[in-house]
Amino acid sequence: MKVLVINAGSSSLKYQLYDMTDESVLAKGLVERIGMDSSILTHKPTGKEEVTEVSEILEHTTAIRKVLEKLTDKEHGVLNSVEEIDAVGHRVVHGGEYFKGSALVTPEAKAEIRRLFDLAPLHNPPAIMGITAAEVNMPGVPQVVAFDTAFHQTMEEKVYLYPIPKVLYKKHRVRRYGAHGTSHQYVSRIAAEYLNRPIEDMKIITCHIGNGASLTAVKGGISVDTSMGLTPLEGLMMGTRSGDLDPTVVTFVMNKEDLSISEVNSMLNKHSGLLAISGSSSDMRDITDGWEAGQPNETLAFEMYEYRLRKYIGAYAAAMDGVDCIVFTAGVGENSIVVRENVCKHLTYLGVEIDPELNKIRSGDPRRISTPNSKVEVLVIPTNEELMIARDTLRIVQEAK
Amino acid sequence: MKVLVINAGSSSLKYQLYDMTDESVLAKGLVERIGMDSSILTHKPTGKEEVTEVSEILEHTTAIRKVLEKLTDKEHGVLNSVEEIDAVGHRVVHGGEYFKGSALVTPEAKAEIRRLFDLAPLHNPPAIMGITAAEVNMPGVPQVVAFDTAFHQTMEEKVYLYPIPKVLYKKHRVRRYGAHGTSHQYVSRIAAEYLNRPIEDMKIITCHIGNGASLTAVKGGISVDTSMGLTPLEGLMMGTRSGDLDPTVVTFVMNKEDLSISEVNSMLNKHSGLLAISGSSSDMRDITDGWEAGQPNETLAFEMYEYRLRKYIGAYAAAMDGVDCIVFTAGVGENSIVVRENVCKHLTYLGVEIDPELNKIRSGDPRRISTPNSKVEVLVIPTNEELMIARDTLRIVQEAK
Repeated sequence: MKVLVINAGSSSLKYQLYDMTDESVLAKGLVERIGMDSSILTHKPTGKEEVTEVSEILEHTTAIRKVLEKLTDKEHGVLNSVEEIDAVGHRVVHGGEYFKGSALVTPEAKAEIRRLFDLAPLHNPPAIMGITAAEVNMPGVPQVVAFDTAFHQTMEEKVYLYPIPKVLYKKHRVRRYGAHGTSHQYVSRIAAEYLNRPIEDMKIITCHIGNGASLTAVKGGISVDTSMGLTPLEGLMMGTRSGDLDPTVVTFVMNKEDLSISEVNSMLNKHSGLLAISGSSSDMRDITDGWEAGQPNETLAFEMYEYRLRKYIGAYAAAMDGVDCIVFTAGVGENSIVVRENVCKHLTYLGVEIDPELNKIRSGDPRRISTPNSKVEVLVIPTNEELMIARDTLRIVQEAK
Repeated sequence: MKVLVINAGSSSLKYQLYDMTDESVLAKGLVERIGMDSSILTHKPTGKEEVTEVSEILEHTTAIRKVLEKLTDKEHGVLNSVEEIDAVGHRVVHGGEYFKGSALVTPEAKAEIRRLFDLAPLHNPPAIMGITAAEVNMPGVPQVVAFDTAFHQTMEEKVYLYPIPKVLYKKHRVRRYGAHGTSHQYVSRIAAEYLNRPIEDMKIITCHIGNGASLTAVKGGISVDTSMGLTPLEGLMMGTRSGDLDPTVVTFVMNKEDLSISEVNSMLNKHSGLLAISGSSSDMRDITDGWEAGQPNETLAFEMYEYRLRKYIGAYAAAMDGVDCIVFTAGVGENSIVVRENVCKHLTYLGVEIDPELNKIRSGDPRRISTPNSKVEVLVIPTNEELMIARDTLRIVQEAK
């Protein structure tokens, strides 16, 4: 059983081909600059050289055709023919309230994803392009959609509603949806497996902190709260996103600077966060370098980031009346020794104690960084959203048979 | 030494006259509907009957003249002459970054309060009217201003800045200011006194929850974080205010419903919170009645309110790496047995344990509601912003001599 996982953006398309008999990656790659001058396809077959090809790729159907050519190429390929691909799994950002989990692609499912364009105008349209492109290139091959929001559909009404007039929910579906659900679900499961404890009995806080960042309170294996909301702007301070603000800041700034709705949204999503405070970079590696060198702006950015992250951990401990395990994942979570160290050193009131030496180990495997005395297990778990999507795809295709 | 404390709103004026030799209240009252038809003056001299007078009061100077007439009235008065008033203390909502504490009214101070009209357009203009009216009626009597924001001026840069372009702070002073500072300071001091512990060593979370509501993390006697921000909209769910939202909700709703800046602000400040979710009332007493009767909308409103409050307590425990004492104050905090009970019963991970019987006692005095075993002291402390302002006024006038 071979599953191709696709993550389509407006001008890019990432792919990963799995052999699900052993969950090994046969090949992966990326098409960039779709629709622009000189598109780039980077293809990496496992165990072979990476190849890069520059050509004209005007839309997603051509992009997938080129990918399939590479996957079946005599020299760089890993398949004899496209027919070996048994199923395709697509990452979709927004599943609204309709999708409580991954689902088979049907005309109804596609119509529903289209209905959600309004809530995810930047993300759902390219997902539909990716699905259509895969259908055209691989007719008859079952396709599955996996949603960033689906894991959070277990949140209770008191958690997902905003305290604003209810008509806005009824009319426009204004509520909290969350994101990074595939990752939060994946690392919380791995955490329970790693600790050899039943997830049903656990209170886990998963910190998916990359360029985008969100926290989830996972109680008994389900998401009970998550920091992103109607959109991925809510919650933590991120690379270029502000996270939480006094809502009045939005209108105050629009008024003072005569900004339109799209301008203020662009400011809060692309020109805020670490980038705005450091004035230099949205990348935590640069921020950390500046902080270690004693540069004031980077130091302030680092401290704000840590402080806001720590307060969310505290809030979710209160949300679940306790926490057994804190998981760090994604770019910053997996790699930033100092972010983990600085957050944890202020959580002694929870009984958190990390081992500085364990925290320094770099590895691609799940690992514990807390001491045996720590009352809370602190883990670093590399996320793997593609594998999670491949697993869901396999399961759903087999169930549909 | 007698001090008159004044709290001037746009169409109202509250007053309280203190004898500072024993901090007793000689009289208090309220002028309502200033500038409208048939203004109402309600005057309550301590130990005497309350009197109500309906007349035409077009602006604040007349309002204060009427108040002084009542205070020196043969029948309802408590003074022989206005000259017995030694000083006047004014409550002012916004002191910006200029006022780190209460201050003597000078031309510079008034100019500074005027400069802050922009940040508090509804609150600072009437405060200036109140000050001017007192100056006209009591020439030569020293006046002091006490600010809702001043106590929070000890917050660090990492706490008061938003993760948005820094030019907005430099140009428009967009930052977090907080509110209810006089109350948070007062109850945190009383808490330390009540527990007979040095406030310098304590970590206190003060919950000022009335119709407006804010939390403060008080560490070593100073405010290190507070839930209100640029304006009193940020933070907790309140009677009619939303509190925290995904900032995108603001622009999404403006776009969908074609709302102007002032319309969306009005929605978030006056038509949200408990009122929006219950659909019936902004008053916690009504919400609690509905919740106890099993009505679904009131139940949801109650649960959201409790959940959001509890998460803030958790966040502030993380902010200070622990908490020694939680204080409930203001209308809901002092009177709602069920809000206190429901918040505390989900904080067992902090070692919070309240005594249901102690929690039920109604009293105007500071009191403990936690058990002897509780790791966190939980107190109910009636706030007294007027007394705090009177004390500040006395101190500053004496220092200025």
